[in-house]
Amino acid sequence: MRLRHKPWAQDKLNEYPHFVPQKPEELVGKWQTRFAKEQPIHLEVGSGKGRFIVEMAKAHPNINYISMELQTSVVVSVLELQIEAQLPNLQIVNGDGRDLSQYFSPGELDRVYLNFSDPWPKKRHEKRRLTSPDFLRQYQAILKPQGEIHFKTDNQGLFEYSLSSMSQYGMSFKQVWLDLHTSDYEGNIMTEYEEKFSSRGSRIYRLEANFKTE
Amino acid sequence: MRLRHKPWAQDKLNEYPHFVPQKPEELVGKWQTRFAKEQPIHLEVGSGKGRFIVEMAKAHPNINYISMELQTSVVVSVLELQIEAQLPNLQIVNGDGRDLSQYFSPGELDRVYLNFSDPWPKKRHEKRRLTSPDFLRQYQAILKPQGEIHFKTDNQGLFEYSLSSMSQYGMSFKQVWLDLHTSDYEGNIMTEYEEKFSSRGSRIYRLEANFKTE
Ligand SMILES: C[S@@+](CC[C@H](N)C(=O)[O-])C[C@H]1O[C@@H](n2cnc3c(N)ncnc32)[C@H](O)[C@@H]1O
Ligand SMILES: C[S@@+](CC[C@H](N)C(=O)[O-])C[C@H]1O[C@@H](n2cnc3c(N)ncnc32)[C@H](O)[C@@H]1O
Repeated sequence: MRLRHKPWAQDKLNEYPHFVPQKPEELVGKWQTRFAKEQPIHLEVGSGKGRFIVEMAKAHPNINYISMELQTSVVVSVLELQIEAQLPNLQIVNGDGRDLSQYFSPGELDRVYLNFSDPWPKKRHEKRRLTSPDFLRQYQAILKPQGEIHFKTDNQGLFEYSLSSMSQYGMSFKQVWLDLHTSDYEGNIMTEYEEKFSSRGSRIYRLEANFKTE
Repeated sequence: MRLRHKPWAQDKLNEYPHFVPQKPEELVGKWQTRFAKEQPIHLEVGSGKGRFIVEMAKAHPNINYISMELQTSVVVSVLELQIEAQLPNLQIVNGDGRDLSQYFSPGELDRVYLNFSDPWPKKRHEKRRLTSPDFLRQYQAILKPQGEIHFKTDNQGLFEYSLSSMSQYGMSFKQVWLDLHTSDYEGNIMTEYEEKFSSRGSRIYRLEANFKTE
């Protein structure tokens, strides 16, 4: 359906199959073959225009990154950054975070990043939030047992919801930041949304969570 | 030791044995006998001067309340409010939250309130924080399986710590408020510290947690 509306965007992605695998569902269990080196894989779900993941891939050459974004026309922006940067540790997927277990095998990933996910404030849209139980189940299915979710947002309601939802799912928080930009957290890379909202004075919330309490 | 320094305060508590049981450790498993009616018991640890628990006891006659406070001279302030109010559903204990299982039997309580607990910001004082694992173990020991902890504070660091600590202990959050006073939470009763800090513009954080994820 997206194809029909944005053929130019799909055409652009098709031109760079070494950055944007054309049949990502055929890579289940084989993602390491897409990278120059075999090393931990971190996935961002909902990358938007991709500044975060491209800068992360530059800053951490010892990690393999996968950018996943639903909207084809937005994936093109990630691709454009990658065409510029030519990073051997970044792959780009035009896909839906709802279907992660169609793309990855159990334990294939080490970390999932969620940045400024759509808040879906209405209760009846809860299932669309990227930290609702159905999504948590997807992350759990593809993460290593010690794998982590790193989530940041300016949206107070979504952060409150996520603290409840994740803890009720049985997850535990390694650390929580209630005002990231005044904290001593180092190495923060701002996303496009983060720059926009923090420049307007919004607080940024952040958490690191895992599925094991040990 | 406290006795030696504040004999006047201890004398005052001794004058009101029907409000301040003289040997609370002998009431283990028998707290309901101290109240006019048998009904759920809610404990506040660190009541300070007692406005919160006295107002709660007035507002909720169908709940029995116990105020626990470490400092004898501060307990006197709670007692003075109770002498005024004469509430049949409020008992006062001069005791330490570290020793809860010496005062209560397993499952004797339904809820624990922690309000504006001392933040103990230094890492080496972590064990003094009322939401550190040793304290959580105490609350768990005396709460019913579905029992809840309701915690509020203005202290960002203590709240961040508590979210981690409680989730790592295996607790889950029924709900979290990152700005209580602008939320639609109803029936909030302000503590002395809450009034002071919120009038200075501090945000108030709040959570409700339990030990079961079910
Ligand atoms: C509010 S934007 C944030 C973009 C970027 N992370 C940032 O911080 O600047 C959310 C993005 O998530 C994408 N998205 C929403 N649901 C998604 C899903 N189920 N799978 C993949 N991407 C999704 C949207 O298309 C949108 O680009
Ligand atoms: C910062 S004051 C807050 C008082 C009150 N809850 C309020 O919000 O206004 C903390 C109180 O907790 C008491 N406290 C600290 N540790 C305690 C413990 N282990 N057991 C009982 N009370 C304690 C202190 O004596 C002090 O009165």
